[in-house]
Amino acid sequence: MSKAPTIAALAADLAGGRTTSVALTEAALDRIADPAGEGVRTFTHVDRATSLAQAEASDRLRAHGIVPSPLAGLPVSVKDLFDLAGQVTTAGSVVLKDSAPAKVDAPAMARLRAAGAVLIGRTNMTEFAFSGLGINPHYGTPGNPFDRKRIPGGSSSGAAVSVADGMAVAAIGSDTGGSVRIPAALCGLAGFKPTQSRVPRDGAVPLSWTLDSIGPLAASIACCAVVDAVMAGEPAHAPEALPLAGLRIGVPEQIVLDGLDATVSAAFSRTLTRLSQAGAHLSDLDMPALIRIAEVGGRGGFAAPEALAWHKSLLEHRGSEYDPRVSVRIRRGAEQSAVDYIELLAARKAIMAEAVEQTRDFDALLLPTTPIVAPRFDEVADDAGYTRLNIMVLRNPSLFNFLDRPAVTLPCTTDGLPVGAMLVGKRHHDRRLLAIARAVEPVIAG
Amino acid sequence: MSKAPTIAALAADLAGGRTTSVALTEAALDRIADPAGEGVRTFTHVDRATSLAQAEASDRLRAHGIVPSPLAGLPVSVKDLFDLAGQVTTAGSVVLKDSAPAKVDAPAMARLRAAGAVLIGRTNMTEFAFSGLGINPHYGTPGNPFDRKRIPGGSSSGAAVSVADGMAVAAIGSDTGGSVRIPAALCGLAGFKPTQSRVPRDGAVPLSWTLDSIGPLAASIACCAVVDAVMAGEPAHAPEALPLAGLRIGVPEQIVLDGLDATVSAAFSRTLTRLSQAGAHLSDLDMPALIRIAEVGGRGGFAAPEALAWHKSLLEHRGSEYDPRVSVRIRRGAEQSAVDYIELLAARKAIMAEAVEQTRDFDALLLPTTPIVAPRFDEVADDAGYTRLNIMVLRNPSLFNFLDRPAVTLPCTTDGLPVGAMLVGKRHHDRRLLAIARAVEPVIAG
Repeated sequence: MSKAPTIAALAADLAGGRTTSVALTEAALDRIADPAGEGVRTFTHVDRATSLAQAEASDRLRAHGIVPSPLAGLPVSVKDLFDLAGQVTTAGSVVLKDSAPAKVDAPAMARLRAAGAVLIGRTNMTEFAFSGLGINPHYGTPGNPFDRKRIPGGSSSGAAVSVADGMAVAAIGSDTGGSVRIPAALCGLAGFKPTQSRVPRDGAVPLSWTLDSIGPLAASIACCAVVDAVMAGEPAHAPEALPLAGLRIGVPEQIVLDGLDATVSAAFSRTLTRLSQAGAHLSDLDMPALIRIAEVGGRGGFAAPEALAWHKSLLEHRGSEYDPRVSVRIRRGAEQSAVDYIELLAARKAIMAEAVEQTRDFDALLLPTTPIVAPRFDEVADDAGYTRLNIMVLRNPSLFNFLDRPAVTLPCTTDGLPVGAMLVGKRHHDRRLLAIARAVEPVIAG
Repeated sequence: MSKAPTIAALAADLAGGRTTSVALTEAALDRIADPAGEGVRTFTHVDRATSLAQAEASDRLRAHGIVPSPLAGLPVSVKDLFDLAGQVTTAGSVVLKDSAPAKVDAPAMARLRAAGAVLIGRTNMTEFAFSGLGINPHYGTPGNPFDRKRIPGGSSSGAAVSVADGMAVAAIGSDTGGSVRIPAALCGLAGFKPTQSRVPRDGAVPLSWTLDSIGPLAASIACCAVVDAVMAGEPAHAPEALPLAGLRIGVPEQIVLDGLDATVSAAFSRTLTRLSQAGAHLSDLDMPALIRIAEVGGRGGFAAPEALAWHKSLLEHRGSEYDPRVSVRIRRGAEQSAVDYIELLAARKAIMAEAVEQTRDFDALLLPTTPIVAPRFDEVADDAGYTRLNIMVLRNPSLFNFLDRPAVTLPCTTDGLPVGAMLVGKRHHDRRLLAIARAVEPVIAG
């Protein structure tokens, strides 16, 4: 588990009068404002006065016994692609800077507010969420908390750094091909991508309506589960850990173990050993559906044409202000025909059904979240490195957006930089996956 | 109501021992085989021995008190695009003639069999269902029962004629832009297009997976309701008629009343008068969503690219064997980009929501099913006439495929050729629409 404090611990401190929401919020704001820190590159917008007003209101309500959820009074950061009333949603771009402020909160954000969270600021991201590395030429890119010369991962780059650097207790991200799980893994955090329909996506700038989903990054699975429950409109608690003994965990043989670097390979091996020793039934899983995903994706995916439909007019008028590494990939959507797209939809449906069959006998799947640890900034400086490493970090997570399966990433014991292990559940069985992940988490960490 | 016998009347005759399934089936087979009749153009496949075996089995079961539904022992025709085990599904084409016979029944057809229906034969249709006129150059086109020099309407042309000419008690069709409602209206029958998800579409050759739905044609709404209930997996009975007094019926002002011919105009006026006199509250309905549908449809619809995705390889290898009026329109799907298609999906979602708002205060909408009576064959002989009249008959029905609303067509009193009145319900409230239609039916007929 990350060293960042958990929601449960802080909620207990607040309940016990050992701290206040104002104190927690001021500490977070101070870290954000620290000129020696990453705050300026981690957030695109922070409003100290409004954050403190939320904290004061929370403390006042608590003094009268009103504590709507374990999130009450805790600073939570919000990725810059969600609408919050009165704020401009820029999605890490400059082209939306002159847009009108949002009139209402995105529904999932409104649920966080209703649960008492202090929404402390808008986090930086890959422009329009269209890359897994987290580089942003407009607002800068926060350095990885474990080595500032390395990238944080993305697209929810600021989200991960905000939690790892103590600027928020939890962060809200979006995940289209790994944008929650990649930065969580590379920054040593837990992250959760739910089944798509679990959390409403209204009020978020879309990347791919077929693949986008909304999820949290935090210190632990229990933290993620609480935040997820709130955003899904359910009671704000984490499911109990399932007994690990006897759980059937499949490790897919296809694609996901290719090209692991030495750190990831060693960490993943230890993870397998520890889980076996703890009584889980691990086995290799023949999952040809993963090959089929790679095959059909090669003819053009969902993200480019779906993003282009949203960006068409903006690209026409202000295309030169986009990060060219983003705009070039969105524009590629124009090459796809309606028939290609329809065939892709049909193929997805068939492959999802095949994957259900192939994974029927397993409680969860296990794989490395990314095959590599966080690359250095200099490795992604040129276009070739950017393209190669972007494809590399997206490879494993994106398979399960295609399949619309819930997936978490968990930090696993490592000799060096953070390594994430991904657990994948059955579609719509999100809470069961979180219960399994709670059991796996202490075994593979530290 | 049509003069064709109803399911209820025939079920009573069977129950009372006044007839047998074998007698009914033989009579239907004799009409199909009558060289002076339309049978040869109404069916693409009839197997006398198998039909009689089904009828004999039904009579034998009935003698032992086994009567699974009101459909037990009654001849029902099936459009040539549904799989029936052991039969080749040709969808009105010649290019599928050499395909392997289906291994299993389409699920909706299996439900009809389980309900005891005698599946008497496969009905002719526009090739691949891709036109509302019903013309088929490969198998001929059955003449309209009210004037053999006129078209029956389509694409479920044989379905309508099979019922109107006493070759089946009910017919199963599919409706993508009106293919159940148009031939039902032009042949003086009732027809029902459900909300798409109500009846499973597996085992049917698709035209447009976004728009296709499966529905019955028969003598009355009660007949349609029984068949629909069976195909939807529900108890096989029709809902009782709702009281007509006080029902709020909206007549859309946009598009649907344009260009009515004299017969339709007079019949529709009488329909409105009769319903008002019977106590329904009729009012004009401002429904700008209908204009928006026409606008977005003009940039290319769903059917062409979705059909092309299915037909691509067949068109490549055997395109010359298609009806050119069908293949030319399927091939047009190649012009559509993925972005166009994605924008159309997004527009549809928005327009469906607008339409829900605009129709919130009404129990049902009422409009002419088609603006014209059945055209003569000579009017659709040239491409210009074919195109113009095809667009004309599809215009009103297709609006409610776009909106995924349930809709029935009912015969209304006419001075000349049959005229259909369409009632449209709320999405997923199919049974309520049928209950309203049962109340409307006797008032506007005859």
